[in-house]
Amino acid sequence: MQKDVIKIGFLGLGTVGGGALQILQQNYREICRKIGAKLEVKRIAVRDVKKTRAPEVDPTLLTDKWEHVVLDPEIDIVVEVMGGVDLARQAILQALENDKFVVTANKDLMAQYGQQLLSIAKKQQKNIFYEASVGGGIPLIRPLKHCLAANRIKKIMGIINGTTNYILTQMAKEGKEYGTALAEAQARGFAEADPSNDVDGWDAAYKLNILAGLAFSGMIAMDDIYVEGVSKVKLRDIRYAQELGYAVKLLAIGAETETGLILRVHPTLIPLNHPLAAVENEFNAIFVEGDAVGEVMFYGRGAGSLPTGSAICADIMEAASAIKYEIKNNVIEANFVPKKVVPMEKQVSRFYLRLKAKNEPGVFAKLATAFGEERVSLDMIIQKRSDEQTAEIVLVTNDVTEGSFNQAMAKIREMPSIQSINSVLRVVE
Amino acid sequence: MQKDVIKIGFLGLGTVGGGALQILQQNYREICRKIGAKLEVKRIAVRDVKKTRAPEVDPTLLTDKWEHVVLDPEIDIVVEVMGGVDLARQAILQALENDKFVVTANKDLMAQYGQQLLSIAKKQQKNIFYEASVGGGIPLIRPLKHCLAANRIKKIMGIINGTTNYILTQMAKEGKEYGTALAEAQARGFAEADPSNDVDGWDAAYKLNILAGLAFSGMIAMDDIYVEGVSKVKLRDIRYAQELGYAVKLLAIGAETETGLILRVHPTLIPLNHPLAAVENEFNAIFVEGDAVGEVMFYGRGAGSLPTGSAICADIMEAASAIKYEIKNNVIEANFVPKKVVPMEKQVSRFYLRLKAKNEPGVFAKLATAFGEERVSLDMIIQKRSDEQTAEIVLVTNDVTEGSFNQAMAKIREMPSIQSINSVLRVVE
Repeated sequence: MQKDVIKIGFLGLGTVGGGALQILQQNYREICRKIGAKLEVKRIAVRDVKKTRAPEVDPTLLTDKWEHVVLDPEIDIVVEVMGGVDLARQAILQALENDKFVVTANKDLMAQYGQQLLSIAKKQQKNIFYEASVGGGIPLIRPLKHCLAANRIKKIMGIINGTTNYILTQMAKEGKEYGTALAEAQARGFAEADPSNDVDGWDAAYKLNILAGLAFSGMIAMDDIYVEGVSKVKLRDIRYAQELGYAVKLLAIGAETETGLILRVHPTLIPLNHPLAAVENEFNAIFVEGDAVGEVMFYGRGAGSLPTGSAICADIMEAASAIKYEIKNNVIEANFVPKKVVPMEKQVSRFYLRLKAKNEPGVFAKLATAFGEERVSLDMIIQKRSDEQTAEIVLVTNDVTEGSFNQAMAKIREMPSIQSINSVLRVVE
Repeated sequence: MQKDVIKIGFLGLGTVGGGALQILQQNYREICRKIGAKLEVKRIAVRDVKKTRAPEVDPTLLTDKWEHVVLDPEIDIVVEVMGGVDLARQAILQALENDKFVVTANKDLMAQYGQQLLSIAKKQQKNIFYEASVGGGIPLIRPLKHCLAANRIKKIMGIINGTTNYILTQMAKEGKEYGTALAEAQARGFAEADPSNDVDGWDAAYKLNILAGLAFSGMIAMDDIYVEGVSKVKLRDIRYAQELGYAVKLLAIGAETETGLILRVHPTLIPLNHPLAAVENEFNAIFVEGDAVGEVMFYGRGAGSLPTGSAICADIMEAASAIKYEIKNNVIEANFVPKKVVPMEKQVSRFYLRLKAKNEPGVFAKLATAFGEERVSLDMIIQKRSDEQTAEIVLVTNDVTEGSFNQAMAKIREMPSIQSINSVLRVVE
């Protein structure tokens, strides 16, 4: 017995929810034809029912109680776009208990409680769709689950935070300093008044958690991810990087190695001819490397009302199809098992280092000796004199463990001829 | 009643079939876990059962009669990787009649008979999966059908032929002439002994047919697509393009406009900062523009044994899930309706033109007048003297219909002071 009308309830109607609703209205006939059923938005829970809204909404649909949505027996699909963690989690749990499919754009929630919620959904023979939680409208979750399902994924690496990529692009292209670029991003709506979630790398880390969980079938805690933000990146470093043939990007990197998972978010030097180096401003792009497919990349706008709404609507359509065809849970079953994470000090990187030293004989020899003793070999060196007393030295090492590099750095910091360590950044090829 | 074992038959075991089989063997346990059923390769039809094969195959599975596969009542999924059109079509028709799901990598077949075959499959409550027919392992068919399902697709534009992209990249980066780059591509296995299907643009046109059909819900005939190959692209044009800020790529372009569909494949000047300009060698990339998602791009290896095998295996997994969950036909229903195609002479482009003229006063004025009479305005001009008698002139027009441009060109060809028209290429921004 197939349903002719599938009813939807929204939790929240901000930027993202409004975008989804607009798309549902705009492409209504085509969407219904494709799923072979009518969609009806039956209830929308909002904080303030009196606020004027675009797109226009029949005011009788609005309620200020989320329970009116998740407890409504007629509603088949609950779309959670309220954000935040605790209340959203509570609402989704109740929606699942009340036999509803769930669509969410909530990355903080899915990063921290996603696997728990998915397993509860499975017990209820329901499902949670969360394509919109990572990369806005760029297809990522579905390609990882379905299109690349036959691959063992070896690596994911991407630019998954638009705010920081906008800032770094403006620094590189327009020669702005970090503070100026951030202020401009705030003025243009690409960064929030309190930008710390973006610039400190946490937004990217949440998204990496979600992607890596799916890619490596891993149970991943936020503590497993090494996180470093962009606030210490100087225009001077971006210029040196360009001179050495690199762009500086905030990358989220996940890999499965023989010794465990690599999970990290940090500003990174990446070769200028790498496709990720060409990803500018608010755009996102994610590289995925599978044992069969090789490298594939997905690129697009990682945020915004309509792009994110596009992902939500695709999820609503998948949920509607699951209801229509009585598909219990996932067609392709994800699996989350505990995995060992490689401790940061054992992870291997190349490093970019900028420091100031006294302009006197033998300084470079001491530096090289300190690195040599920790078996850190040097790949590239730039030395430019800042003034008569001080020399600025830029080094790029070959592959070295974080542990060995840090030990070499501890020695270097102690040297009387080293005046300051100005920057330490990682390099990928 | 769910099946525990799902049986697969292969038609063909060449490069692509062998890649698919290797992936099935290599990631067998994970693949079976994800679909919740065992897969078993039961029969493989090949031309020569005696040939040694990698990956190794139990010789008792081999047969030289394709009927042994499509008529076997135990086989659930037929994987057609034999290539060619007539026999493959006949085999797929029989497979559908015998209640089998079909997976195919056959772009020639799907471009010419795909919509007919899909409608027969629908009547049989079966389905044909054809992700591998376009872009190798890059997810394209599934993103268009599912991930971007809520969008009205406005445009698709991409590099979907690896051979020609390899040739054009080698010309641009290494300064090789077309013939040298082609010979090298043949030596490295990127081009066939008879390269005409690739270099004349037909391979890209077949793929465009498949993608555009899906993107615009259109019934598209091969005659609807304007096709121009790369063999007339000269190194000299690539160098001028670079000077003007462009790369030259063989693009497949599809768009839905108010006056109809635009469908064309031709060498194109594209700005150097466009993400497609950075797609090098055998890589493919496809831009898709939706009314909600904006621009997204998919990038990866568009051919090869394992990448294409990756797409086939994903399709096998989807077919297996459809069998397991008794999903009839598509969860998201594609639709193919007749659409008007904008005649080429009414399509609008910018043009790049390189010609040789007598080095005498007033030549440029005559040229400009001929263009002006057809309301063709000029955006960029380079004039360099080749020798005392001859001036080489390079022009880029603003937007103009093909019809008006051709009329201007007819006049210019007649001018006594014009010695030769050396190149005409289109430009996109």
